[in-house]
Order: sequence, then C-alpha cells, then structure tokens
Amino acid sequence: MYSFRNDYSEGAHPNILQKLVETNLVQQSGYGEDEYSLAAKELLRLKIGHPNAPVFFLSGGTQSNLIVISSLLKVHEAVISAKTGHIFSHETGAIEATGHRVITVDTKEGKLNPADLKKVLADYSMRPHVVKPRMVYISNSTEIGTIYSKAELTKLRAFCQANNLILYMDGARLGHALTADSNDLTLADIGQLTDVCYIGGTKNGALIGEAVVFNNASLAADFDYVLKQKGALLAKGRLLGIQFLELFKDDLYFTLARRANMLAMKIARAVEEKGFSFLTKATTNQLFPILPKTLIHELSKDYQFYEWEAIGEHSSAVRIITSWATEEQVVDAFIAAIKNSK
Amino acid sequence: MYSFRNDYSEGAHPNILQKLVETNLVQQSGYGEDEYSLAAKELLRLKIGHPNAPVFFLSGGTQSNLIVISSLLKVHEAVISAKTGHIFSHETGAIEATGHRVITVDTKEGKLNPADLKKVLADYSMRPHVVKPRMVYISNSTEIGTIYSKAELTKLRAFCQANNLILYMDGARLGHALTADSNDLTLADIGQLTDVCYIGGTKNGALIGEAVVFNNASLAADFDYVLKQKGALLAKGRLLGIQFLELFKDDLYFTLARRANMLAMKIARAVEEKGFSFLTKATTNQLFPILPKTLIHELSKDYQFYEWEAIGEHSSAVRIITSWATEEQVVDAFIAAIKNSK
Amino acid sequence: MYSFRNDYSEGAHPNILQKLVETNLVQQSGYGEDEYSLAAKELLRLKIGHPNAPVFFLSGGTQSNLIVISSLLKVHEAVISAKTGHIFSHETGAIEATGHRVITVDTKEGKLNPADLKKVLADYSMRPHVVKPRMVYISNSTEIGTIYSKAELTKLRAFCQANNLILYMDGARLGHALTADSNDLTLADIGQLTDVCYIGGTKNGALIGEAVVFNNASLAADFDYVLKQKGALLAKGRLLGIQFLELFKDDLYFTLARRANMLAMKIARAVEEKGFSFLTKATTNQLFPILPKTLIHELSKDYQFYEWEAIGEHSSAVRIITSWATEEQVVDAFIAAIKNSK
Amino acid sequence: MYSFRNDYSEGAHPNILQKLVETNLVQQSGYGEDEYSLAAKELLRLKIGHPNAPVFFLSGGTQSNLIVISSLLKVHEAVISAKTGHIFSHETGAIEATGHRVITVDTKEGKLNPADLKKVLADYSMRPHVVKPRMVYISNSTEIGTIYSKAELTKLRAFCQANNLILYMDGARLGHALTADSNDLTLADIGQLTDVCYIGGTKNGALIGEAVVFNNASLAADFDYVLKQKGALLAKGRLLGIQFLELFKDDLYFTLARRANMLAMKIARAVEEKGFSFLTKATTNQLFPILPKTLIHELSKDYQFYEWEAIGEHSSAVRIITSWATEEQVVDAFIAAIKNSK
Repeated sequence: MYSFRNDYSEGAHPNILQKLVETNLVQQSGYGEDEYSLAAKELLRLKIGHPNAPVFFLSGGTQSNLIVISSLLKVHEAVISAKTGHIFSHETGAIEATGHRVITVDTKEGKLNPADLKKVLADYSMRPHVVKPRMVYISNSTEIGTIYSKAELTKLRAFCQANNLILYMDGARLGHALTADSNDLTLADIGQLTDVCYIGGTKNGALIGEAVVFNNASLAADFDYVLKQKGALLAKGRLLGIQFLELFKDDLYFTLARRANMLAMKIARAVEEKGFSFLTKATTNQLFPILPKTLIHELSKDYQFYEWEAIGEHSSAVRIITSWATEEQVVDAFIAAIKNSK
Repeated sequence: MYSFRNDYSEGAHPNILQKLVETNLVQQSGYGEDEYSLAAKELLRLKIGHPNAPVFFLSGGTQSNLIVISSLLKVHEAVISAKTGHIFSHETGAIEATGHRVITVDTKEGKLNPADLKKVLADYSMRPHVVKPRMVYISNSTEIGTIYSKAELTKLRAFCQANNLILYMDGARLGHALTADSNDLTLADIGQLTDVCYIGGTKNGALIGEAVVFNNASLAADFDYVLKQKGALLAKGRLLGIQFLELFKDDLYFTLARRANMLAMKIARAVEEKGFSFLTKATTNQLFPILPKTLIHELSKDYQFYEWEAIGEHSSAVRIITSWATEEQVVDAFIAAIKNSK
Repeated sequence: MYSFRNDYSEGAHPNILQKLVETNLVQQSGYGEDEYSLAAKELLRLKIGHPNAPVFFLSGGTQSNLIVISSLLKVHEAVISAKTGHIFSHETGAIEATGHRVITVDTKEGKLNPADLKKVLADYSMRPHVVKPRMVYISNSTEIGTIYSKAELTKLRAFCQANNLILYMDGARLGHALTADSNDLTLADIGQLTDVCYIGGTKNGALIGEAVVFNNASLAADFDYVLKQKGALLAKGRLLGIQFLELFKDDLYFTLARRANMLAMKIARAVEEKGFSFLTKATTNQLFPILPKTLIHELSKDYQFYEWEAIGEHSSAVRIITSWATEEQVVDAFIAAIKNSK
Repeated sequence: MYSFRNDYSEGAHPNILQKLVETNLVQQSGYGEDEYSLAAKELLRLKIGHPNAPVFFLSGGTQSNLIVISSLLKVHEAVISAKTGHIFSHETGAIEATGHRVITVDTKEGKLNPADLKKVLADYSMRPHVVKPRMVYISNSTEIGTIYSKAELTKLRAFCQANNLILYMDGARLGHALTADSNDLTLADIGQLTDVCYIGGTKNGALIGEAVVFNNASLAADFDYVLKQKGALLAKGRLLGIQFLELFKDDLYFTLARRANMLAMKIARAVEEKGFSFLTKATTNQLFPILPKTLIHELSKDYQFYEWEAIGEHSSAVRIITSWATEEQVVDAFIAAIKNSK
C-alpha cells in the first residue's frame, strides 16, 4: 500500500536531519534566541522583501492560525473565511475557542473575493447586535487545491485596506501555490499584498514548523507574549530555526514544492486523458479527480487516498496528494493503473 | 563560555536523531496514529503501571499544562498551585487565558501539602461569590529543585480524593526527581498517586515532547478534541513517538536524568566543602547555591547561569543546571574554579 | 407616531410596578435569596410540573443564552441553531465569545427538525478535527414568529435523547407561543420535552427578567457560580422575583401574551383580506406581511416598524409586533389604513 | 431583626419608583436609546466635567468590571488590584474567566500606591514569560471602607500615565466616598484623575444600575459591542436611564450617600466612646468595629451583620453597613444597645 493521503506521511528532507545531527551538541540560547533561528528569520525577511518584518516560528497550522488571529482581534471582532477554510472546517473550533466567530462564505473554488466581503459587511452592519468583521483569512493554495492570481490578491487587498480589514494568508501549502504552472505571484508579492502570512514547513519537507511573517510590522508588537501564552514557544527553538534555514537555503523549499506539483500534474494529465474530470481545477499538489466507483475500488487495493464527496450514483471525487517525498515510480505505476482501467 | 543556564541548551540524545534518520522515509499515518507513537504509548503505559491509561504526546510544558487544565475544569473552577509553580510564575497567564484562576499558596520549598489545601478551601468557601477549587497542580521536581517524598505525595493524594480535587503533576523534570538520591518514588507510584501527570522529554534529552498520562482514564474521554483545538496535534506525530520510544528503551530516560543529577551533586559537594549554603536543598539537577558576589563575578567570565535572588548585601543565590548533555570535564573545571576561589 | 417595532417599547405591567412600590422598604436578603424570588421560583416549578427544578432569574435573553450554554458545554463542544436563531443572528457573537461554535442550519421556518440534526452530526463526524455537537438551541416562538407543535418538539426531543444532545429552548416569547391559536403545547409539556428552557419576561410585561428552568436538574449543579461569574447575579434579586410572582399570579403572563397575539391576528386578517401574503405564517405577535412599497411608505408616516427584506422590486416584508401594551384603538386605526389603501 | 448587612436590603428610592410609574406607558426606543437614558448620560457628563465622555449604563458591579476590563485588555495583558479588591475577592473569577490574570497586591487599607505598582512592574518584567500589567483597578470607597485622598489619587494617576497603565476606578460606593467627612475629591476630580470609572447606583438607592464613564473617550470606541456581547444591554434601557436621571436630579445621589455616612458615623462614635477600636478607620458607610464576642452575641439577637474576622480569642471585627434607607431610630436603638452593654 502506498499513501497519497497527504503531504506529511514521511519525515523531513534529509538536509534537515543532517543539519540537526551536525549542530546537535552546540549550546544555544532557548526560546527561539538561538543563532539558527535568528539567521533563518533574517533569510526569510530577505526573501519576502521586508527587512524589518517580525518573523516567528510555530509548530503547526492550527497553532499558527489561532495565535495570529487571537492576537489581532478584539473580543467583539470576527474573521471572515471561505466555508472550506481550514480554520472553519478542520480545526475543532480553535478560533471560536479563543472567543471569535468565523464568518463563513460559500465559494466555488475556496477563494474569497471583494464581492464576498462586501456582502459580509452588509450582513454584519447592525451594530452592536452583531460582531464586527475585522480580518480576512485566505489560504494559498486553498484547501481544495486552487490558487490566487496576482490580480485576485491585489483586488482583495485593496478592498481590505479600504475597509479596515486585516488580510491574513494561511500558507500551509504556500510553496505549492507559488510554484504552480499557472501562478503569477512571488513570495515578495505575498509580502506586499498581505498583512500577515505564514509560510508552511510541515507540508513541504519539515518535521514541524510554520513561519509567521508580519508584513505589517506594527501588528506584531506583542506577539511574543501570545506565542508563549498559548504554549507555542519551544524551549529548543533551534529545531524550528534549523529547518527553515535548510528549507530556504538555495530555495530548497520551492524545489520541493515544484517537484510535488510536477508529480501531481503527471497524474492529472493521465486522469484527463482517460476522460475524467475534476471537482476543482488541477493546479497544485492536491488533486480532486472524479472517478468511477469501480476504479476507486480497484485503486484502493494498492493506494491510499480520501474519498472526498459522492458525485452522482456511480462516481466520487477523491483527494490525491503528492509531496516532496512521493516516489516517482509509484506515481508512474498509479498512472498506469488509471490508464489500464476499463 | 559554557552554559549552566538550563537543561535545553543542546539538541537531542543521539539515539533519537539516529532513529529519526533511520525511519525518515517510512510512510506513516498522521496526527499521532503512526506506529512509533502507538508503540511508545504502549511502553509508557507499561512503565507507569496502567495498561489502559490514555497517553498523549505534546510539544512543551506550557502547552501540556494549559491543555490538561482547561480540558478538565469547568468555567467556574480553579487550580491551586504553589506560588513558585510554573503555571503561575512563567507561563504568561496561560491558565487564566483559558478562563481559570490559579489560586496560589506561599510555600518554603515549592511544594504543597494538605494544610495548604485546607486553607485554600476555607478561603474559597463563600459560594457562589468565589471560584471553586477543583484541581491541584504540583511539580516534581519543583521549580526550585526539590522533590516530593512518597509519604508527602500519599498524604496529598488522600486529601485530594477526600475533597474532590483532581491531582495533576507537572513532570517537566520528572526523570530528575525519580533518580535523585533521596527519592523514594517510582514511576509506577506516580501512576498510582496522581490523576494525571506529564513525563517531560524536552528537559531530559528530547528535541521536544512531553507525555501526558491519564492515570484516571475517565478524565481523558475527550482530550483528543482539546489537543487539536489548542493547536497541539502535530501532523507528523512520529516526531514525538520516536523520541519517547527511544527515551524509554532500556530506561535511557532515567540514565540521562541520573547523570545530570550526579554532575549537579558533584558541584553541590564542592559548594558545601567551600562552606557555602543553598537557597533550597541540593537534590536534583537544579542547584541554588548562595555565593559571594565576587565569586559570581569571577565565575561569570567563563560560565553562564542565572542570578536568582540577592541574599544580603554581598551574596546572591544563583541557579545552576546540569543536563544529560553537560560535559563532565567542564563540571570539573567549574568545581576547580569554586575551590580555588579566595 | 406609534411604534410596532417591538414588544419592549413600554415599561412593565402596572401590577408589577404596584408590587415594587408596596414592598419597597421591606428588608430582604440579597442575591436572589429574598422571599419574593423564592416564592416565584416555587410558583414556576409548580406551573412547569417539576417540583424540584432549579430556577434562576436573569436579566435578559442574550445573558440567559450565553450563561446557560457556556455552563453546559465543555471547551470542544458546540451548539446547533437555526441560522435565524437569536444566538447566531443578534447576539454579537456572545456564544463564540465563551469559546463555542454555533453550528447553523438553514431552515424555512426558523425551526430545527431531526433531519437537520442528523445532517449536522454527519458533517461533524471527523473527530478530533471538528467540534463535538452537544446542544440544540431552539426558540419558541421563533425569531420569525413561528411555533413548534407538540409532535415536532416530541420528535426533536427523542432525537436529542438518542444522540446525547442537550435540548435548550429560548422562550423569550414563550408566552406568545403557548397562547397562539394553533398551539398544542403547555408549559408542562415544555417542562417534559426540554432539558432546560427560559421563560421570557422582558417581552411580555416585565421591566427585565427571564426565568431559566432546568427541567433536567442535574445540569444545574453549579449554575449559581456561573451566574455570578458572568455578572448576572443581581444584588437586589427582589426586582426579578417580584416580577415573576406578579406575572404568574392568576396566569397574567398568558393573559398578556394572548392579548398581544389577538391584536396581531386582527392585523393579519386585515392584511389577508386585502390580498397580501406573509413571509412566514402569521401565528403569534410577530407578523411579517409582504406589502407594496407604496403602502409601506404611506403607513410609515404614522407607524414605526422594521422593513425586513425586499421581495421583488415593488414589495418588502415588514415586521410588525404587538405586545401586552399595544393599544387596540391604534391597531384599529392601523387596520383601517391598510384597508383604505389603494 | 434589623439588617445592617449591606446597602441593598431595600428597594429603590421612592422618587425612582414614582418616575417609573409616571413614564411607564410612554413608548421609547430600546437598548439604551430611550430619551431618559440619553438625558441621564448628558447629565452625568456635565457632573463629571467631560462633555464628550461616553457613558454606558450597566446592571451591576461584577458585570461592569468584567466588561470594562475585558474590553480594554489584550489577551496577554493583566490588571493589578489590591488583594481585597472586589474583582479578586468576590466576583467568582469573573476577570480570569475573560482570560486575564488579576495581579494582587497585599495592602493595609485596601488601597494601591505607586510603590505597589512599581514592585509589580519589576516582578513582571521577564517578557514574554509573564503577563503584561496594563491596567490598575482601584475601588473608592474600598471594600474595607477606606477612601482615596486627592493627593493619593493624583500620584497614582501620574504613575499610571508614566507607565502606560490604564487607571480604572470601581465606584460601587463612590457616593459614600465623595461625601465622607475626610474626603477632598469631587466627581469632577474623578473625571480628571481616572481613565474610566463607574458610578454605582445599586448600593446608593437604585434598583439596579451602574454608570460606566470613559473619561478617556478613546477607550470606549467599541464598548457598545462588548456590552451587547456580554449580555448587558437591556432591551428596556429606560429602567437604567430613569434611575440615574432621578439620582442625579438635585444631587439626590450625594444626599443619600451623605445620610448613610452620617448614620454610620453616629454608630462609629458610640463604638469609640465605649472604648472599642476598628479594623480600618471609620470613614464611610461601612464600619468594621472590633467588638467583644459577648457583645456581638447580644447584638445578634436583634440585628444582622457579618462577622468579618476573629481578632484574638475574645473579639471579632464585624461589618456594619448603613444605607440611604437605614432607619435613624433603629440606629439609635443599636447605639443604645452598645452603650448599655457591660
């Protein structure tokens, strides 16, 4: 059995482990003040184009989301998200647990646009009987594999600025978004077009680790307190610093993501050639092909993946994910199994 | 410069790194369902003597404390702690941030006893105008290096049971407590004498990782939800499982702690022989010798440690910590520096 | 100008004010231990058919909802509500502010049924990545004027019991529901068919005051603490006790509600006779007639009411509310204005 | 039996009830937008000397404290209070329940001074491992009957301003403080020397009601949302507006408080003449005389009051409270009982 279930089935990229071994006995300060973390933050600031952006390393996506959001919202403020957004769909009410409503929007592709936000602001205008929308949460790539174009993000950003809304991007799979064939955004664009974002490590080669970057530095004034308060400040912060140092050395981060996307596109082409369609356009390392149940049954004998949603009586959309660690020969065998199906 | 500041200045015990490397590309389920985590939990259940105890791996002490406590208390309930307790003194209000008061008790040695609890219950009797004390938080070893004896813990436990109080032990340095010369408790005793505890990895050889064990299994019924909600459920749970598997293989955990204690005792003897005293009795790997400021100044040229508290005009208590990774020849040099001081 | 905007535009029923004056200088215990509150609780227990039901008096609906819900849910648990439910639509995120998601259901009539709940349970099955639905919030009458039949409530209750869901009824306008022409529920039925409910005073003749009744007594074990903690325990609890004593003396509560309904039905008949329809069936003291904009404009010169929702280009649904204090001759004039419109 | 237990044993001043009756059937807007509330706010702004100060009416002290504090603090910020402060001693962890630590200070007279605050700031300097002190909570008069002098408050205010601390005064018994013989503060001084305060109605003649005044208007920007979210926005806000309108008409508020103080001082003089002392200096309407247990036993046959604290073997401090409604002839009888005791 081979798993296409997710992009965290293996450990870390070997460079990371090697660096952990090499530096293991060097004494370092705790709580993120180690030299590796400091260097990694400097490197990320350079890459994102904000020499003074506060950067913090956290352990996972839910943790990053809940700490960023709860540190920025006042008690009566809310965050707007696509209904498919991770903070609404898969984080066990983590945001509500910090006291804030997640206002959801039904979307076709998991993305928000200014018209969506305009409607939310209208729906939430009856002050003080409703919460105050104050932040917009987007994911790039989204939870259903789509990405934002530069034009889309630019318009969203303009709307947010005009309406006093903080724009926050969840980049759990930012690498995959920025290396997609149809992408026209750079990391520096993300730095310009969002107030705060996180660059995901866990789903792109790290053991754990997400880098929260405050492109709007003033928003981070007291973030260190909240990081500690929510249990996210690791004593051995070196573990996070070393990983991001390795991931952004020679742009390994993007190399890994590009490879995952490339393997996904190989599968996507085979799906298309066989005449099957997709729930959402195949763009990054998450694919949602709609396959006949018979084929799903057949493939399930050798491969693991999620059945996502029934489509009609005889088909289902499934989720197939590739990663930096996916073996190409397995992908080829998987493709062959699709091609050879009746 | 050599640091005696804390027991998390280095990385992980080499066995752990080696195992991470060996298993790196084996595909595993996410979110703690990997085979290493399952095996490590089984092993811990065996060691603590509860074949059915729910065990969860978390990333750090503050995280463990806030999730355990907030998952067990109702909104109007409070936890009792020594004023020196980590949850009160060094966790940025993490417990209050989940909505609960930490009721503090002044203590001499950082430990709670039944008389302390009795007074708290009396002080908080004016229902409903006060919170309801419902949990007792203790650390072993404590934040000031002392340990509980079996008799002390047994009495505390009896009081808690008689008064409907949950007894929770923070074991950030449980290894050091259980391997101290004067200790008479076993891990199995901890399993019998507390409702819930955590076995600390970070301060005893792990990169990150604390194992929360529910000796009272019924208290854990929904803990998995809270773990996820608070951002503590790692996608690559294998990172935690592998570490605890290695730490408890051949009781490495205790070997490492014993070594840290042994080196601390070596230093303690030198301090005593030189005629200096201690703020709290030297018992585990945290020492609080009271030294003349001139000697502190001299030692500071080559060694890092915290000045803890001024004692009179010319002396201060300092905090010196040894660990599994502390180099014995450095300890010897440090001892020589003390002995040779005027 | 005369207001049909809501049922809290006037003060209190005169009997209440008279009793406040009569008892004003009698010394009483504070915090709800006064003799009036004790007697009123006893009376309510009798009426609802639970001689031992814990009863608490609170000041308003949002307060009652947030305290009941937050006292009963654990941190990872959620409450299910119709999207029109007051806790979701008009309480400024009060429930989320206590840490809990409100899971919403789109409904036609503002009511929940077992099929709705079944779907929610299916949608929230991916433990531990989602919150745990644990409570069902319903309003009777609903926010859009409809009511539950005995059959509907019985089925809902059965589903809740079978699925470990607490059933909570918001009775801000319970009087109006139970005195509607089409109603077949009694207050004693509510006592049997819900776990906890509140009987609303503010919208039916009280100055302030809602009576929370725990039909499932075990759920109230520590409610007094939470009441105090959330700032809801009035020092002069007599103010609440006296009001409920008067409202339930000789069933004044139902007399007042019946009168409000009767006046609303008079208006409803005029609307129907004129050939206009309703957004939701005219049942209680909240009417949602769909009127031509010209007529709305005309009526607005002498009467205040809310425009609720545009219906096509030339019409809108408006909300018209009658109360215990509505003057019948004004209702007659209003009806005449409708009848005489072109 | 006559009660000296507290100042909320009776209902409201008759003027208030009369006005409630007079205005009862006048239709008014809900949620504090009624004409009485608007006029009362205007009147309070005039009295406190801030023509633009945002004013809000709430129902009680705990409610006011928790809403003011939680609306002003960020998640990692804390409030400093005397250990005797109501928010720490008698509000069931209401502040912690909103996520914030109450940092306590041991005091002799229930009052804070700059030296106390300086010490707290030093104790909480180890950022980010500790909460950030951001607000100072004081009561005037205090929970043990003492008051702030103008010099004391001026110094405290200066320290707060120099250290970015918000100064908040709980004025549950502000009337009694400002009419004490030894007082040298005016309501306008309070307006100048605090950022936010509340003027207590419940303990000085109202049925319910506290007026929160933001002397620093910018702090109130979104207070209306929080008021609603926490369940404190009454539908019939007229109930609160009418009361404050009556209380501040012709300074009735101060007349009532002065009378309560006068009666207390009468008792205090008798206590002194008999040779007994006080736990805290007799200043306002709360007295803490230290009486022989035999006398306490004797007085308890006819009068109710709290035994506050045992003083030695044969005496206790008791708490005796007078109010606007206390009957002077009962006071005289009580005094006689003291004088005639052996």
